Amino acid sequence: METFNVHILGCGSAKPSNGHLPSCQVVEVRGKLYMVDCGEGAQMQWSRVGLGMTRLGHIFISHSHGDHCFGLPGLISTMGLLGRTAELHVHAPADLRPFLDCVLATFCKDMGYRVLFHEVDTSQHALVFEDRSIEVWSLPLRHRVPCCGYLFREKPLLPHIRPEMFACYDIPLSQANNIKMGMDWTMPDGEVIPNARLTRPADAARSYAYCSDTLFTPSLSSWLAGVDLLYHEATFGEDYLLRAKQTGHSTARQAAEMAVLCHAKRLLVGHFSGRIKDETAHLREATDVFPETLLASEGKTFEL
Amino acid sequence: METFNVHILGCGSAKPSNGHLPSCQVVEVRGKLYMVDCGEGAQMQWSRVGLGMTRLGHIFISHSHGDHCFGLPGLISTMGLLGRTAELHVHAPADLRPFLDCVLATFCKDMGYRVLFHEVDTSQHALVFEDRSIEVWSLPLRHRVPCCGYLFREKPLLPHIRPEMFACYDIPLSQANNIKMGMDWTMPDGEVIPNARLTRPADAARSYAYCSDTLFTPSLSSWLAGVDLLYHEATFGEDYLLRAKQTGHSTARQAAEMAVLCHAKRLLVGHFSGRIKDETAHLREATDVFPETLLASEGKTFEL
Repeated sequence: METFNVHILGCGSAKPSNGHLPSCQVVEVRGKLYMVDCGEGAQMQWSRVGLGMTRLGHIFISHSHGDHCFGLPGLISTMGLLGRTAELHVHAPADLRPFLDCVLATFCKDMGYRVLFHEVDTSQHALVFEDRSIEVWSLPLRHRVPCCGYLFREKPLLPHIRPEMFACYDIPLSQANNIKMGMDWTMPDGEVIPNARLTRPADAARSYAYCSDTLFTPSLSSWLAGVDLLYHEATFGEDYLLRAKQTGHSTARQAAEMAVLCHAKRLLVGHFSGRIKDETAHLREATDVFPETLLASEGKTFEL
Repeated sequence: METFNVHILGCGSAKPSNGHLPSCQVVEVRGKLYMVDCGEGAQMQWSRVGLGMTRLGHIFISHSHGDHCFGLPGLISTMGLLGRTAELHVHAPADLRPFLDCVLATFCKDMGYRVLFHEVDTSQHALVFEDRSIEVWSLPLRHRVPCCGYLFREKPLLPHIRPEMFACYDIPLSQANNIKMGMDWTMPDGEVIPNARLTRPADAARSYAYCSDTLFTPSLSSWLAGVDLLYHEATFGEDYLLRAKQTGHSTARQAAEMAVLCHAKRLLVGHFSGRIKDETAHLREATDVFPETLLASEGKTFEL
């Protein structure tokens, strides 16, 4: 299977507490890296995790609260110091643009690469970006400022060739790509070997959803149906349900209810408030509803 | 003796490396806290050191390079979240103002306290700030952008009273402040006891100098004469002397030469480049010239 990993660089909330860092993740798909949110300290965490900055081309920001974007100035500057020349694309709600413009104008005048801003409409579920490996879709969320999550969908994969059938029919390996693309094989005597006999079905394309700061929003589930890994914020426990509602956040139980609603395969909870003293209890609150729940943690990698 | 401490929150240079964090210090004088530079991660370090944010009223920024100021947005926002109401004063070169204005306009609209910007003329050695305990003076430095250091001078202290003389002449303790201020004591029979007999000389006022990013600049020493603790950047070792000159930095040996020139009591070196693999050797380069040299290190406190 090709790589599809989610690296957690930060999974705390706004106030530094409990040893957590603010939100930042790196999604790694087939050798490429996509950053999702960029809280303060992202560049230090990146350096600790040792992913190599040249493979990063796109950063997706969920909303313009500091704990989701204050790592951008440092990360962008450091990549300049490291001699980056490739363009960097920042996808974010419109209200982040003035901050980014100001950072670039004040600190990055002589930088050897360009940073391009792409406005994301947080009210739409729309295709934000695609390359050969993935599509990235926005997920409208409900928070105190314009805010969206991101859904990473792997593009359909090619079927596997069956080496034993290649041997049996004496098919040269140079034909592997054609046959993966669906070609039948014609023998020297004119017999046609149907493609289905030469291949095994492709692996199912995988998906990862990042639901950053949001009120519990059941209608989201239709876009998340069957997602392999759902990251859903769980800022509070049910004991702070009212506070969650007041501040535009969710509880661990609500994150688990979302995983049930959308038939996620696994749930990853994060964005922990400093009020959470016992993360095991926080996890239990979610697993009581959705057993396949995991706790996010700085430095951890989750494989899809 | 009243408190006069320097807490190191970060002493690395721009690229995250060697486990160091970018520049940030807290000077603690008689219960008040003054921050000097505010690199990314300052608020997390502050939270680890546990100094309590309410005692901080003034931040002094040496120059507008990211590794000296990218911690400001997070620190300012977090103090807002923690319910701060007291004004915060940021003293910095003029070119930092647009960045701070943008941060305040984008992220701090509903904050319960004001942040006031005070422009520092980096070309002058001038009084930047004073309160009852200290004076803060700018120190013109030579770097790639307008840059200054800061000299913290404790104000002259009052003499100590001699309790045994108070007992001898039956002087009520309520007179202690008057006598500290220089008053003689008149006995009931008219005899005048001179102040000098009732007091011991005041402790010498202490001073701390922070010489952030700079080319070796011998003329600085006249302003630093006899400083108790000199923090001088030592980004490189002598093996990178040329690189130090090219980038507007100093070597460990040059930092030590400055300590010799200004007759500092102690030298603290920091702003370590990622190129420094062996800090013990770096320290040795300085101690060969000036034995009373110390290495800065995150989490360490230096008492004056």
